[in-house]
Amino acid sequence: MTTLFTDLDSYSEWRNSIPFGKTIGFVPTMGALHEGHLSLIRAASAQCDFVVVSIYVNDLQFGSANDFQHYPRTQTDDVNLCSTANVSVVFAPLKSQLFPNEIMTLLQPSNAADHFEGSDRPGHFAGVVTIVDRLFSVVKPTHAYFGIKDYQQVAVINHMSSQLHPDISIEICATEREPDGLALSSRNRFLSQRARTSAALLPKALTTAITNWKSGVMQSSALIDAVHSVLAQDPTIKVQYISIVQAGSMDQVQTVGSADVVIAAVVIDGVRLIDNMSFANA
Amino acid sequence: MTTLFTDLDSYSEWRNSIPFGKTIGFVPTMGALHEGHLSLIRAASAQCDFVVVSIYVNDLQFGSANDFQHYPRTQTDDVNLCSTANVSVVFAPLKSQLFPNEIMTLLQPSNAADHFEGSDRPGHFAGVVTIVDRLFSVVKPTHAYFGIKDYQQVAVINHMSSQLHPDISIEICATEREPDGLALSSRNRFLSQRARTSAALLPKALTTAITNWKSGVMQSSALIDAVHSVLAQDPTIKVQYISIVQAGSMDQVQTVGSADVVIAAVVIDGVRLIDNMSFANA
Repeated sequence: MTTLFTDLDSYSEWRNSIPFGKTIGFVPTMGALHEGHLSLIRAASAQCDFVVVSIYVNDLQFGSANDFQHYPRTQTDDVNLCSTANVSVVFAPLKSQLFPNEIMTLLQPSNAADHFEGSDRPGHFAGVVTIVDRLFSVVKPTHAYFGIKDYQQVAVINHMSSQLHPDISIEICATEREPDGLALSSRNRFLSQRARTSAALLPKALTTAITNWKSGVMQSSALIDAVHSVLAQDPTIKVQYISIVQAGSMDQVQTVGSADVVIAAVVIDGVRLIDNMSFANA
Repeated sequence: MTTLFTDLDSYSEWRNSIPFGKTIGFVPTMGALHEGHLSLIRAASAQCDFVVVSIYVNDLQFGSANDFQHYPRTQTDDVNLCSTANVSVVFAPLKSQLFPNEIMTLLQPSNAADHFEGSDRPGHFAGVVTIVDRLFSVVKPTHAYFGIKDYQQVAVINHMSSQLHPDISIEICATEREPDGLALSSRNRFLSQRARTSAALLPKALTTAITNWKSGVMQSSALIDAVHSVLAQDPTIKVQYISIVQAGSMDQVQTVGSADVVIAAVVIDGVRLIDNMSFANA
């Protein structure tokens, strides 16, 4: 049975009833749950005594009020989905309870936030670490689950958590994909049928980098060019960035090793999509 | 009976044994306890079911390694003093347990840190909020006690805590003073006999501002000049700043009202002293 808490005190009362030593797996979400979230919930469920899923659309991490307002909200479906997935608690707090006072930008992300999503979306990662820190403080999990699909977010959250919540174990889960390779994302539902077809080129392009690397191309620039070439087949795809970075640090590399990752962001028909692949999986 | 914990897990086990609903009053210190700390402990004791005193000399908030190394360390005396003051727990954690991973400057103080101590001691308040946030997360108090003697620190901690730990009630205690008015401080023990005599001019000078305001002088600049004049009587006193600020915000004021505070920092014989007085007490 899944319990829905929207009140901080009610949640804390439940949390305090859990004996010391029991594990709490936490899956923070912005709702609009899909198979990608379910894979995080399954991982938490396999590893922990209790699973808590939060649903909170964090305005701090949106660049525009418009983007925030149009983010999909499907709370009834989300709670039902959690019930079928044996989630112990859905926590959907009010902003006025999470942040009862004026919000200042006190928390800054690490250097891993400097480029890519960080430069394309100013203030985004400050908003992310602010909410994740606050949710960690309130939810008090022993484990927290994030999808590697948001590669840079995982790096930034790892840094924040390792310092501010070193007792919480951060668990990283693989990206769930559609049959044609498209990474699952809440934003996919905004893709028109034509854009949805184009979107499949993104994982295909990243796979090209992995394949070329396996056949001996080690130069980052050559691999990135190959990704660009695949995406250039479709003029409706606007590339925001393609880069190859060191795992964790987000530092760009010249010569690619197996610990490195190719990351990309594109916009198709006004919908922004990100994806990444690790050379370790080659 | 006072229990000394140096291990995070042992402390957390104790903390988890305290029933939900009981109050925990927390007095964070850097040790070298004196009557000023005792007044905080007494306030916590009067208000809370349990009192936790932490002793941790936070290197992050020192400008120089030398100042950090020479900060007084008197742990045995401190624990004994806590015992006589009915402190439940003394928590003296190791840095390696508080910060098991690389320390990044993720936490920034609010704008209240921009001037005065903040500009005289770069990085000081980032170090303060980093340690206080971490101690709040580990100690999990319901109330935390700070002395108004560190006026700007109280403003900065209030801002940090109101956002990151809004459930913790911040309690502010009055400044304890020697018979001649000198505010108690761990640094006072570094004053030579001659410097100790000079130091009494600091509270006397601040009192002059209060007295003049009571007799009708409302201009900030005139009141500050009067403080300077008193301190100028002793050429061994080097003024670092004298200012009149709005309570809480630390914004400088032109015309002084009862919610404002006169703050000052001086150096006497190499020892830096700060003090403040509120016009509300006039």
